[in-house]
Amino acid sequence: MQRLLIDMDDVMADTGQKIINTVNDACNSSYTKEILITNPKAKEEYQEKYLTQKHKLWDKGFFRDIPLMLDAQEVIKNLYGKYEIFIVSAATEFPNSMSEKLEWLEDYFPYIGWSHTVFCGHKWMIRADYIIDDHEKNLINFTGTGLLFDAPHNKHITDFQRVNSWKEVEKLLM
Amino acid sequence: MQRLLIDMDDVMADTGQKIINTVNDACNSSYTKEILITNPKAKEEYQEKYLTQKHKLWDKGFFRDIPLMLDAQEVIKNLYGKYEIFIVSAATEFPNSMSEKLEWLEDYFPYIGWSHTVFCGHKWMIRADYIIDDHEKNLINFTGTGLLFDAPHNKHITDFQRVNSWKEVEKLLM
Repeated sequence: MQRLLIDMDDVMADTGQKIINTVNDACNSSYTKEILITNPKAKEEYQEKYLTQKHKLWDKGFFRDIPLMLDAQEVIKNLYGKYEIFIVSAATEFPNSMSEKLEWLEDYFPYIGWSHTVFCGHKWMIRADYIIDDHEKNLINFTGTGLLFDAPHNKHITDFQRVNSWKEVEKLLM
Repeated sequence: MQRLLIDMDDVMADTGQKIINTVNDACNSSYTKEILITNPKAKEEYQEKYLTQKHKLWDKGFFRDIPLMLDAQEVIKNLYGKYEIFIVSAATEFPNSMSEKLEWLEDYFPYIGWSHTVFCGHKWMIRADYIIDDHEKNLINFTGTGLLFDAPHNKHITDFQRVNSWKEVEKLLM
């Protein structure tokens, strides 16, 4: 059975949306993903506001209530029988996040479990056939096939096969 | 640079001793490692008592104050310049343990850091040249050289090169 690594933030979980909500709540603003993609000036202002709120990523509870990414639940369930799936999240930078991420996974993907969950800094030493990740740094030294999950911060990357949605992942891997 | 994976519990940290202390405190007993190795009847009684206390491994704080394994600090520091070291701990079974393990590592091995720390269930998908671990299950499917760190629970294993102490690890790898 081929092994598939799946990233959490901005792949399974819409962490970008949670961050936008956090900035909007703190700064009384109304940014949306669409505005940030289409309006460079708004994006620049948002980045400044985000830096003043970034410390909240280390707060207890931040990673517990992230919204699900569209279709992630359905497609990963379908992939589960066909691949040996490991969830691989660069979470050790956020010590509070790990127990919260395990609870989140238990809510939405209870069949995966702690035995197939990995929290790390780097990912380059993990061997698998595929990785689905939104960060170029996690694909560069990967020994299998890297699939770049589309995100506002990776639009400029052209070195890897891009997947724009979980439905696209399903077409490619099923 | 060759990559070296190092397990935490019963390799860097004397978790076995912390468990013995926990059983002794709760059961008003006075087991020692030596008694458990040399006296099968005492070991059997201890195992029964341990099972009544095992739930404490999931308690907040349990993994924060584990004693260091003899010479681990000195030898790992020496290995650090010669190997790409990753700490790999099967910690996702204990959700509270991970932030505590990061703090523990920060106390005794501050140069390693979150970027080279991995918390997981299985370890078989991590690629490296060496692994030092006390559990046979983590050596069986490992693609590099597995070194079995001596522990009371692995005395019967003969399939892997055994290292009896950190001083022996140093001789072998330096």
